[in-house]
Amino acid sequence: MSSTYGDNLKLSIFGQSHGAGIGMILDGIPAGLPVDLDVLQAFLNRRAPGQNVWSTPRKEEDRPEFLSGILDGFTCGAPIAAVIRNKNTRSGDYDNLKDCPRPGHADYTAQIKYGGFQDAAGGGHFSGRLTAPLCIAGGLCRQWLAERGITVAAHIAAITGIRDTPFDPLNPEVNAVRSEWPVLNAEAGAEMRAAIDAARMAGDSVGGIVECAVTGLPAGIGEPMFGGVESRIAQIVYGIPAVKGVEFGDGFAAATLRGSENNDAFTVTEGEIRTVTNHSGGILGGITNSMPVLFRVAVKPTPSISKQQQSVSLSRGEIQELTVKGRHDPCIVPRAVPVAEAAAAIAIFDLILGSTRTDRRKP
Amino acid sequence: MSSTYGDNLKLSIFGQSHGAGIGMILDGIPAGLPVDLDVLQAFLNRRAPGQNVWSTPRKEEDRPEFLSGILDGFTCGAPIAAVIRNKNTRSGDYDNLKDCPRPGHADYTAQIKYGGFQDAAGGGHFSGRLTAPLCIAGGLCRQWLAERGITVAAHIAAITGIRDTPFDPLNPEVNAVRSEWPVLNAEAGAEMRAAIDAARMAGDSVGGIVECAVTGLPAGIGEPMFGGVESRIAQIVYGIPAVKGVEFGDGFAAATLRGSENNDAFTVTEGEIRTVTNHSGGILGGITNSMPVLFRVAVKPTPSISKQQQSVSLSRGEIQELTVKGRHDPCIVPRAVPVAEAAAAIAIFDLILGSTRTDRRKP
Amino acid sequence: MSSTYGDNLKLSIFGQSHGAGIGMILDGIPAGLPVDLDVLQAFLNRRAPGQNVWSTPRKEEDRPEFLSGILDGFTCGAPIAAVIRNKNTRSGDYDNLKDCPRPGHADYTAQIKYGGFQDAAGGGHFSGRLTAPLCIAGGLCRQWLAERGITVAAHIAAITGIRDTPFDPLNPEVNAVRSEWPVLNAEAGAEMRAAIDAARMAGDSVGGIVECAVTGLPAGIGEPMFGGVESRIAQIVYGIPAVKGVEFGDGFAAATLRGSENNDAFTVTEGEIRTVTNHSGGILGGITNSMPVLFRVAVKPTPSISKQQQSVSLSRGEIQELTVKGRHDPCIVPRAVPVAEAAAAIAIFDLILGSTRTDRRKP
Amino acid sequence: MSSTYGDNLKLSIFGQSHGAGIGMILDGIPAGLPVDLDVLQAFLNRRAPGQNVWSTPRKEEDRPEFLSGILDGFTCGAPIAAVIRNKNTRSGDYDNLKDCPRPGHADYTAQIKYGGFQDAAGGGHFSGRLTAPLCIAGGLCRQWLAERGITVAAHIAAITGIRDTPFDPLNPEVNAVRSEWPVLNAEAGAEMRAAIDAARMAGDSVGGIVECAVTGLPAGIGEPMFGGVESRIAQIVYGIPAVKGVEFGDGFAAATLRGSENNDAFTVTEGEIRTVTNHSGGILGGITNSMPVLFRVAVKPTPSISKQQQSVSLSRGEIQELTVKGRHDPCIVPRAVPVAEAAAAIAIFDLILGSTRTDRRKP
Repeated sequence: MSSTYGDNLKLSIFGQSHGAGIGMILDGIPAGLPVDLDVLQAFLNRRAPGQNVWSTPRKEEDRPEFLSGILDGFTCGAPIAAVIRNKNTRSGDYDNLKDCPRPGHADYTAQIKYGGFQDAAGGGHFSGRLTAPLCIAGGLCRQWLAERGITVAAHIAAITGIRDTPFDPLNPEVNAVRSEWPVLNAEAGAEMRAAIDAARMAGDSVGGIVECAVTGLPAGIGEPMFGGVESRIAQIVYGIPAVKGVEFGDGFAAATLRGSENNDAFTVTEGEIRTVTNHSGGILGGITNSMPVLFRVAVKPTPSISKQQQSVSLSRGEIQELTVKGRHDPCIVPRAVPVAEAAAAIAIFDLILGSTRTDRRKP
Repeated sequence: MSSTYGDNLKLSIFGQSHGAGIGMILDGIPAGLPVDLDVLQAFLNRRAPGQNVWSTPRKEEDRPEFLSGILDGFTCGAPIAAVIRNKNTRSGDYDNLKDCPRPGHADYTAQIKYGGFQDAAGGGHFSGRLTAPLCIAGGLCRQWLAERGITVAAHIAAITGIRDTPFDPLNPEVNAVRSEWPVLNAEAGAEMRAAIDAARMAGDSVGGIVECAVTGLPAGIGEPMFGGVESRIAQIVYGIPAVKGVEFGDGFAAATLRGSENNDAFTVTEGEIRTVTNHSGGILGGITNSMPVLFRVAVKPTPSISKQQQSVSLSRGEIQELTVKGRHDPCIVPRAVPVAEAAAAIAIFDLILGSTRTDRRKP
Repeated sequence: MSSTYGDNLKLSIFGQSHGAGIGMILDGIPAGLPVDLDVLQAFLNRRAPGQNVWSTPRKEEDRPEFLSGILDGFTCGAPIAAVIRNKNTRSGDYDNLKDCPRPGHADYTAQIKYGGFQDAAGGGHFSGRLTAPLCIAGGLCRQWLAERGITVAAHIAAITGIRDTPFDPLNPEVNAVRSEWPVLNAEAGAEMRAAIDAARMAGDSVGGIVECAVTGLPAGIGEPMFGGVESRIAQIVYGIPAVKGVEFGDGFAAATLRGSENNDAFTVTEGEIRTVTNHSGGILGGITNSMPVLFRVAVKPTPSISKQQQSVSLSRGEIQELTVKGRHDPCIVPRAVPVAEAAAAIAIFDLILGSTRTDRRKP
Repeated sequence: MSSTYGDNLKLSIFGQSHGAGIGMILDGIPAGLPVDLDVLQAFLNRRAPGQNVWSTPRKEEDRPEFLSGILDGFTCGAPIAAVIRNKNTRSGDYDNLKDCPRPGHADYTAQIKYGGFQDAAGGGHFSGRLTAPLCIAGGLCRQWLAERGITVAAHIAAITGIRDTPFDPLNPEVNAVRSEWPVLNAEAGAEMRAAIDAARMAGDSVGGIVECAVTGLPAGIGEPMFGGVESRIAQIVYGIPAVKGVEFGDGFAAATLRGSENNDAFTVTEGEIRTVTNHSGGILGGITNSMPVLFRVAVKPTPSISKQQQSVSLSRGEIQELTVKGRHDPCIVPRAVPVAEAAAAIAIFDLILGSTRTDRRKP
């Protein structure tokens, strides 16, 4: 009902930021799918903090232990379970967060929903740390998609107002963004880093946009209405903390076009049905049309900033100034790049597993 | 798996544009909730075509017949089932749509997925007509939310580039948009209508943006991760044909702000915890914070246009020019306004039904 | 959450005994599956009342109207919706059932759960009449299983203590029970009818047992733990009113055997792996082993009897004698035979649709 | 889809018999529910092997580590995750089980379903060992039910043909069966132990029946049709390995009664509505009527026996004699007693969490 996702596979995520551990169960995966744990670890490292100077210096080793579901390098049909031990476990008194909630965080809403019983340390179950198990599941699905010739790749599309070159919608450069700083335009990338530095110096933070592409998808994946590719990707992507917008293809820009501009004309290329443009982001009626699937994700600026902010004391019912201690990531957008890929990979693999696409053809 | 929605309530929608009928089952609703069928019909009429000169002249009476679930003006605990008979049932040969798919429509993806067995007439199950049963369910949920003091209201935020006055995020004018043409700024509304007329004269169409607000929600509604308010609303809203973007609060604009600008400071007003601004759209960590929930929906321009377009003949594997016959709605944004309200009402009522918000308070 | 079934397909059933109509939506069915409505009607007629002298004389025509999902004799990929109009719609005052509940019926529990808002007429949503839409869905699944060489057939295994010849567990006589009175042993069948007649003359009713077999199933269908064939069949079969027991293979009798007696030795027959006996009912670890699946269903005696019974007046809080009016079916077991087949067919087709059985083989 | 259960709570179980560990995630539990880990451990010990001379001597310490979801003795709203490390991890070559499957086990069906990729050691994911995480979840639910005055208790109703005194259906002796050997009649208990000893001496095994009672349930719990108490309990109980039958109230015996005998007359006792008898097992129309819920579970004899048995070599396609090595539990029925309690507690707590019972009363 909450930390569970999937119609055909079942992903269940657990953990609190400063609890004993975090992890996931991924059920419903057929046996015999290959698993390369080194490839998975490289994927997880892209999300990990402390990988570069721009992210928080707290260094965690997000190395999952697999307790079940994988044998001799293949899925064995049993649910896949993985655990990551937390190094920075709970210590100290976090009850002040329950009384004086941080603006932009879930402290207040958790207090109301859970009546003070929630684990407030480090955001508890609402911490961005929970994206690590999401990346375990997503990293696995990404491998299984790759085996079918499907690539999921994302880049930083923007930090504040600084924009990277967007993906070519007809032929997204999915292999061009594997550098440490995932952008297509190195110059824009340098500007982004400068903007992040400036924010950090000011005790502030910045947000941005992630653009994700999925190539190699056959036509016919996705279900009508609430089971469409957009519905399924949006549901899981909005499960990533700090996401406030998701759009497919031209998205909000499509709202300013005329139909004659926005409709993608069909054509035939080397015997394959294609579209001349790709305003739709590869999805018509919720179902893939074999063109690249493209979506963008708006990430708000990290709410944890060192500047003093106005909050309230819930117990006293009055305004109270708050200074959040510790060093925080002034921009989580780079780390959100693999997380968006993970989310998309899970959603699409789930749809592929349960696809009702028929093999029959009407005579 | 597809035309089914809900974690606590279960909404199942059926029908094809030119089939015998369309309708829905809404299961899991407690007994004893009042139902006012006149209020519901007024809501459905807002979605119906032919209500004004700007929409398609085909006049249908979307008057549902309730077959079960309602007795003496109250829900009776049994699943609620409603059917709308189609007046314009299937006639003529639509097989040409299977061979020569309309750009921007689901004709091609349906052909691939369903192997030619799909009902191609009028878009079949992918028709916008299927939003009528969505509005039956949503209109009911809207009544049950209203009974709890929760209001769901939307307006046309933009047609092409012409923008209405946005909702005040702290106090959205939910009662100000009930006119036939749902805008806050009459002047902008007149410009929008002119733009739609111009598109129609050109045999073309336009898109736009719908902005929706939910007021009166208590804090603590929504579940963490994939069960958050954003995840649940986005999943159902993307089930509406032609939607290509969904954003909450400041959405994509939040990506350009600094944390100190985007964080909503807490304050106390008449003993109630509030925020000074509402960049978050009333949602923190996926859970309501008692501020108005705000989201915007990007609607692409209607793909059905009378201009000639390039398509392909699937059987011959070559390009073919296509002219879509019949008169079509040059802009579906006004009709999408109640549909967005319906979708939000269903998502939120579903979350309220299953809320795990605790009544206990830690000592 | 209640009248909805299925992991891969989604079946949603609606209706009240004396409401406007009853029906179902069956979603998630691939396109291109053939539908023979005459075969379906013949199946539904086996469940219908008034088909013979032993059942209630109220004659209903359970002829469903399909509103969507079927086109030109094939599924079209859209949800399948069917409605049966009720002839005997609500009339008169049934509020006495709310105050003086019938023993053995859901009148009292419905009153508590629904607070008096429930439709009490004829049992409302709890009526055996709701098995008609179950048979629509099940009759369709049965056809689609038959297309794959899978047969689902049941017979009356017992009425009170009178027992029919049981199915041969290795080779159940699934084609031998298609007579009007579905038994293998005509003599036992005649005794059963005499027992039912005797009960009716006494203003009383009798129960019995239905035995169901599924043949032609490949090995490897079913999921571990809660997704096993037994779990899935039991869940849906217990949705049939009056069912109080479900057992597979030797069932309760297996509890009296030793392991050496109950284990089914493997053997090879014409190159196929088989078992020498079939105590397990074709299921090991929740998964089919290619032997016939066998289960038995205990049906309690019809609670509606004309004899005077002791009930209570809920409003007065005191004992009250009750005489149930109208003519009732003294034994519903014969009509439960096709319903059990329908339930099994739905459960198995659902499992087949979502089967995670792998096509790969470990080198 | 398989090792996942629940409509309102979500239970996900993982592990293989000889893998690194087994465990569970229990999601959807409200915050603030008390957890007593000592009470839980005592419950788990009832299921553990080696607790007495009648069960397998392999001694495991089933002491779960909780990684999330519990804080300071209360649920904190986050998913509850628990892990038990396996002591006897995989070693040796179990591939012979893949080629020569044990009769009565899931070896063969797993081989077909998982193509040889499955973990065959000790039965892998099909091992009875997986009931340990089921008991973690069930032990917690049992505590939360106890807090509401609801007791779940079971006893050995029979071993082979030796029967314990059955529960009094009107007032089951739920507090009388807490001894090491859970029976009501000590003499019958002694006979059962002798029967188990005799089977062990013969290199054989025996089965039996568990009877479970739930007292203190209010009326109105359960949903109609497939969400009824019987459907929900049966689904989860059939997830326990070796279960072949489940019946409620009089179950199969009800099939031999007349309606006038089987209907439970209503009465009023100290102002409360009760029934004079309890043939229905506390459930009418799938919904509790406030009388004790009673069900019985048939457990087949342990398939692992030391006697030589006939199997086949799958690779050679011919019959092969098989002797299963190691010492095995000659009777798992005593250990199934707490497992049945756990299953019932989970099913009922799930239903309580999502109950649509209305608080309103029709005027």
